[in-house]
Amino acid sequence: MGSTQQGRALVLFSGGQDSTTCLAWALERFAYVETVGFDYGQRHRVEMTVRLETLRELRATFPQWRQRLGEDHVIDLAVLGKISDTALTREVSIAYEKSGLPNTFVPGRNLLFLTFAATVAYRRGLDVLVGGMCETDFSGYPDCRDVTMKAMQSALSLGLDRNLKIETPLMWIDKADTWALAHLLGGQSLTQLIIQHTHTCYNGVRDTLHVWGYGCGACPACLLRKAGFEKWATQ
Amino acid sequence: MGSTQQGRALVLFSGGQDSTTCLAWALERFAYVETVGFDYGQRHRVEMTVRLETLRELRATFPQWRQRLGEDHVIDLAVLGKISDTALTREVSIAYEKSGLPNTFVPGRNLLFLTFAATVAYRRGLDVLVGGMCETDFSGYPDCRDVTMKAMQSALSLGLDRNLKIETPLMWIDKADTWALAHLLGGQSLTQLIIQHTHTCYNGVRDTLHVWGYGCGACPACLLRKAGFEKWATQ
Repeated sequence: MGSTQQGRALVLFSGGQDSTTCLAWALERFAYVETVGFDYGQRHRVEMTVRLETLRELRATFPQWRQRLGEDHVIDLAVLGKISDTALTREVSIAYEKSGLPNTFVPGRNLLFLTFAATVAYRRGLDVLVGGMCETDFSGYPDCRDVTMKAMQSALSLGLDRNLKIETPLMWIDKADTWALAHLLGGQSLTQLIIQHTHTCYNGVRDTLHVWGYGCGACPACLLRKAGFEKWATQ
Repeated sequence: MGSTQQGRALVLFSGGQDSTTCLAWALERFAYVETVGFDYGQRHRVEMTVRLETLRELRATFPQWRQRLGEDHVIDLAVLGKISDTALTREVSIAYEKSGLPNTFVPGRNLLFLTFAATVAYRRGLDVLVGGMCETDFSGYPDCRDVTMKAMQSALSLGLDRNLKIETPLMWIDKADTWALAHLLGGQSLTQLIIQHTHTCYNGVRDTLHVWGYGCGACPACLLRKAGFEKWATQ
């Protein structure tokens, strides 16, 4: 990858495969990178632990990135649980429920994540937001779509009166190509780090290490991660 | 005002003069109206009390609005205090401080308010957000500008995959005309209600009732409210 990094980025970092790959991408591309995570009472506290572990491993394994990797911010969004509360919705039927998304799903939560990230970026003097939003695997989420990201970039830039860029390196690639991108960015050291330290499983399972990582192996997130890994590994 | 109200609106309601006028405007215009407030550890808890008092008075004074005024939502945004914490900014100098805005000011907080309001509106089946943003008196706030509102409307509508409209009835009028608008909407009953029950003062003073309302009479918010009242009263 290029050797002349410019710009200051804030990566939306959850400790999963996608956002870890985005973080590596940002560390190769920008001169300085910070991270932000959102603690919204995840069913599995494991995410908040794993993301710190992953940051530590990235620093230990990649000296060239260590110097560019700055502070990590965690924003308490427990309020999301209250917005998703059925108390809010007892009078109105929710179309989303028909689509199979859980009751606890907060519509447009990526808009909230981006807006909070933008205020942090503003405060920290960072001018690029990097997120793992992707149309390829989750086209059902309107708040992950490319057109939404473009509109948010305009709204945030106008509202903060500062040119803010939103970069989504995974927008048009599938899970197999996300593994390939990680390999391109950090070789086997990075793909092994992602396998051993990141977390994707909806059920919070981390007891058995599969070739593609920890997880129950049965939830939609595990199935996607596993299928992507197998496709990539056999290419 | 018109007698055929259509649509369902969510008013960003803080219990101040501006948002109370916006609420009256919405109650005249839409078939059904709910309200949302943001509790972000305001220096003066009085705001959270006053807004409930104002809602109660509106219901008691205006029977024609009572039937259209639905639930009130309060979103806990204590996290705003953490984002504005100097801990976040110890490494980077803040341009905003030079402009005289306090350290506790969160850049782009209206973007957060609108995004949270949009998720509540989505959940509650409401399709219009009404806010008291205004370019006339506070042109220094980029997150209150009309162009920002238009961009946010696009971003929120795309991110939620639902046509959401942002209405800002005070955008181009000054404080005198805000008093005039209140009078037009609800006559002297409404202007008196605003004088006696709404709260604007930055210093949280509510001991003496002036002709223009309660307040210290010296902070920028009081000065603006007072000057607007005097201009309107002598017109």
